[in-house]
Amino acid sequence: MTYSHKGKLITFEGCEGVGKSTQIRLLEKYLTDAGVPCLFTREPGGTPVGERVRELLKDENIEMFCETELLLFEAARLENTRRVIIPALEAGKIVVVDRYIDSTTAYQAFGRGVDKDTVDMLNRYGSAGVKIDLTLFLDALPFANTSRQASDRMEKAGEDFHKRVYEGYKAIDSEEARFVSVPTLEDKTATAEYIIGILKTRKII
Amino acid sequence: MTYSHKGKLITFEGCEGVGKSTQIRLLEKYLTDAGVPCLFTREPGGTPVGERVRELLKDENIEMFCETELLLFEAARLENTRRVIIPALEAGKIVVVDRYIDSTTAYQAFGRGVDKDTVDMLNRYGSAGVKIDLTLFLDALPFANTSRQASDRMEKAGEDFHKRVYEGYKAIDSEEARFVSVPTLEDKTATAEYIIGILKTRKII
Repeated sequence: MTYSHKGKLITFEGCEGVGKSTQIRLLEKYLTDAGVPCLFTREPGGTPVGERVRELLKDENIEMFCETELLLFEAARLENTRRVIIPALEAGKIVVVDRYIDSTTAYQAFGRGVDKDTVDMLNRYGSAGVKIDLTLFLDALPFANTSRQASDRMEKAGEDFHKRVYEGYKAIDSEEARFVSVPTLEDKTATAEYIIGILKTRKII
Repeated sequence: MTYSHKGKLITFEGCEGVGKSTQIRLLEKYLTDAGVPCLFTREPGGTPVGERVRELLKDENIEMFCETELLLFEAARLENTRRVIIPALEAGKIVVVDRYIDSTTAYQAFGRGVDKDTVDMLNRYGSAGVKIDLTLFLDALPFANTSRQASDRMEKAGEDFHKRVYEGYKAIDSEEARFVSVPTLEDKTATAEYIIGILKTRKII
């Protein structure tokens, strides 16, 4: 069952180092300045359980199987969805999530090779059937728009891994109508304007 | 698919305060003294991920949904099963687990009211299809054999909750051939001998 709500749910997706955080900050500034009721949250995280799970997932000294990683991501997601996202949607807000179910499909199923049907099923469970109105996919190759070094377990997973993640996103893009590819332009303000254009076209703002 | 192995997997189950830990210690002493290669582990826990998840689950200051609890238990289980239990079974050991999949069925499905089909499915996922040879269910009402006070979130969940957990165990008992009810005798050494008798009858030792 898909959960229906009054607000709008926007998810941001993309590989590491493509400028996602920057674009989220620019969108947050735009919406806040425009007085649009909105809520920004990130995955994993957003709740006490989520932040503890995030620490665990980012800890390079802890080894874990990719299926364990999947279950931990979904635990954090379920808390964030029910405790933060759904109440904000019910209050009519625009909710923007930094990574959501498609990250799990791209990273765990395509990147790590976890069985995709299991990932799909757990994604439905972890997202409590909430409907995503729009997914903004920053379409650039991993680390295309950054000079920073890989800093945690996920980022350090290797070039082939990140290439599979990118291909995973392209596969989702070809299947999901809510998915919109955003070219990352040289000028980040231009990319931000492109994104705002999409939100207007889709009548989200 | 059920995972086959050379060793034997024994799980201990029961409500809070029925003397489970004592019986596990007595069995460990017996097997060790008898020179039987064995490994004792507990749920959640047993691995770095598991211990961190255990801390989180036991933290009374952190609120979480029962479905989140379920996902966290299964994450810890998956690590423990693949990293600790399966290698020990492959080495031909008797593996004794303090709480396993039936705890999740009794506590999360019967106690908390999480959908049982989801619990069954996640139990299969978290246990990596490993076969349990024997489940020793210490059949006594919650807190029957203790004078200690409820000390954490799970133990403090209330009398009705613990009654549902007990009924859950009785329901599993009526369905699973591997499940053996152990009456908790007044003399704990007598209970320990009863358990050793079961292990001998079932040709586990």
